[in-house]
Amino acid sequence: MALIVQKYGGTSVGTIEKIQAVAERIIETRKQGHQVVVVVSAMSGETDRLLELAHSLSSQPDSRELDVLLSTGEQVTIALLSIALQVKNYSSVSFTGGQAHILTDNSHSKARIIHIDAARVSRALDEGKVVVVAGFQGIDADGNITTLGRGGSDTTAVAMAASLNADECRIYTDVDGVYTADPQIVDEAQRLERLSYEEMLEMASQGSKVLQIRSVEFANKYKIPVRVLSSFVDGPGTLITNEDKSMEQVEITGIAHNRDEAKLTILGVPDKPGIAYGILGPIAEANIEVDMIVQNVSADGSTDFTFTVHRNDYEKALAILKKVADDTGARGGVTGDDKIAKLSIVGVGMRSHAGVASNMFKALADENINIQMISTSEIKVSVVIDEKYLELGIRTLHSVFGLDKAP
Amino acid sequence: MALIVQKYGGTSVGTIEKIQAVAERIIETRKQGHQVVVVVSAMSGETDRLLELAHSLSSQPDSRELDVLLSTGEQVTIALLSIALQVKNYSSVSFTGGQAHILTDNSHSKARIIHIDAARVSRALDEGKVVVVAGFQGIDADGNITTLGRGGSDTTAVAMAASLNADECRIYTDVDGVYTADPQIVDEAQRLERLSYEEMLEMASQGSKVLQIRSVEFANKYKIPVRVLSSFVDGPGTLITNEDKSMEQVEITGIAHNRDEAKLTILGVPDKPGIAYGILGPIAEANIEVDMIVQNVSADGSTDFTFTVHRNDYEKALAILKKVADDTGARGGVTGDDKIAKLSIVGVGMRSHAGVASNMFKALADENINIQMISTSEIKVSVVIDEKYLELGIRTLHSVFGLDKAP
Repeated sequence: MALIVQKYGGTSVGTIEKIQAVAERIIETRKQGHQVVVVVSAMSGETDRLLELAHSLSSQPDSRELDVLLSTGEQVTIALLSIALQVKNYSSVSFTGGQAHILTDNSHSKARIIHIDAARVSRALDEGKVVVVAGFQGIDADGNITTLGRGGSDTTAVAMAASLNADECRIYTDVDGVYTADPQIVDEAQRLERLSYEEMLEMASQGSKVLQIRSVEFANKYKIPVRVLSSFVDGPGTLITNEDKSMEQVEITGIAHNRDEAKLTILGVPDKPGIAYGILGPIAEANIEVDMIVQNVSADGSTDFTFTVHRNDYEKALAILKKVADDTGARGGVTGDDKIAKLSIVGVGMRSHAGVASNMFKALADENINIQMISTSEIKVSVVIDEKYLELGIRTLHSVFGLDKAP
Repeated sequence: MALIVQKYGGTSVGTIEKIQAVAERIIETRKQGHQVVVVVSAMSGETDRLLELAHSLSSQPDSRELDVLLSTGEQVTIALLSIALQVKNYSSVSFTGGQAHILTDNSHSKARIIHIDAARVSRALDEGKVVVVAGFQGIDADGNITTLGRGGSDTTAVAMAASLNADECRIYTDVDGVYTADPQIVDEAQRLERLSYEEMLEMASQGSKVLQIRSVEFANKYKIPVRVLSSFVDGPGTLITNEDKSMEQVEITGIAHNRDEAKLTILGVPDKPGIAYGILGPIAEANIEVDMIVQNVSADGSTDFTFTVHRNDYEKALAILKKVADDTGARGGVTGDDKIAKLSIVGVGMRSHAGVASNMFKALADENINIQMISTSEIKVSVVIDEKYLELGIRTLHSVFGLDKAP
């Protein structure tokens, strides 16, 4: 008998019929003799409906009250799913985030889980019940309802699995696993049987929108095996787990990409201590998140400084940067480009295979794709290229690194 | 500065525009220098929408899960109303039943309030906030969400007023007060300035569906002045309060009626100890509520026994009674009638005015209205008549007892 946490997103529970199908899937797992904790999101469309009500009253509704409002979405789903299980003669009980003792900080709309006291959930499991928990929500130390922000249900599921010491956390989505590249771009993209937490983090943050980054960080921290599966098609999905030797034998695990970014450069800044902070400080103060940062060595006492931000923040960042250029006496002024894309190769095998980066650069050069920025980590190489070459770049790398073959 | 509890029902908060109007009404009270606690119901239609979802899964959904589901209705309203107040620069905070520490027993869907710990609400009031509380719901000792049953928001409001020792509890409805008779039947019906708790109890239970009976019982127990007002039209409404001397000077306060009942009679039952229980025991076991009961003295060792039930339970009660008649050897068998109506005169003044009942009987006789059953209490006389004479009976009594004149 294993303890399995299952998580179903909004589209998986979007209608009464889909909720009934989810109940069937849970019952299958029960029939295999396992204990089941289910984490669910709001029915698809419900969160938007509630947001619309709030926004018809205020353009900036109070975040505490918004959390009270939005948390009803999952509360509806847990009750309905529990009823759907009971009508099929499976004993079950629903818990809101607060009832499941999911304690968070008090950052409304983007709260972080501090602690889960799993005693109540454990007791219900011991009584032979399926436990249905509202994802995305918790309660702060003062008893206020909080939400973890959109997509937070993944985090709820992994955190529940960690606090219960569950055997596996299964995330049901509308895709049947993690692929070597986006299957909509690369026909030959292969489903990965398994990959490491670190690889998944790089894949997720690079734009493979299967799992929330925070949930993978959580899973990595507590070493919870996470399986990504389809809620509509049967199959083994992709297991995200600890790195093992077999993973290192593969050079590259997958190709990730991201076209949500824009690039900004400040040219001819006097090269002196504190200049990076002088540039990025005002950007951070404006609550703009920075991704890649590149600074060239200076030859003549001045330097060029380039970084990327989310495309939505491009205009705002550009205005700030122009002011910084004036203040710091940057000779070359400011340039920017929001028609870029980021392309990355990811794999723990990189560590033990030399020349992976140069293979990547050669492959792109062979296709005449110019590289604008380069950034590397231990298990990842990212480049920024002209957006119009993105698909070509992905397909080229997928083929060059031998990902077209079944793993 | 007074502390006012206001309660708004589903139709008063049925749209965003109506929620904004409620916010305006609350702000008016704040501007008068009062502290305000607001109790709200779900937006009209929402509870039915949620029930429909549950019933599409199960014809008899579990009552615990149904409470989890239905309680989201008020939770949406409290958040929206709080946002509507804040956008007009009035500080406010919303609380669910659980957050307001409304402790109930664990009878899901018909829970009773055991205790309210008002400390958290008081603290928010001291901070200058309008406190918006979800009506109709609470939490049991194990932290399960409970609901008080339909209409329970009135009870929440009165109970909150009691626990806060509020100066007045204002129930906003779609009528502008309590009338001497149903204004849809009697053109001359007058709005009452005030009436006693006992009178309101008799008026409510007799069919003046303005206030939930339980909330009036609560108000009476804790002596909370309750005012019934219109949420759409300004006006003083009707104050329900302690009986005072001036009330006794009026013979009759109002006329109540009820056409939801049916009458059953078992004829020629052997008159021996335990016979009432022998007849009503099986009815109670079938969860059928009995209202009026009349047993005539027996002359020949047998008796006739008549009682009324809700019209919806008529067929079921008739079947049970036929079986009882066979078992007890009732000579005359069973008869019944579901085309009856109950007509009552109510007033604390009755106690000090002789002959009120006989005046009522004479007035009905003058109109050739036959009385089928009579039942009396200290401040009420009820009769059962043929349903088709109901309007005539109401208008006749309204005029005979001088209620056509402004009070």
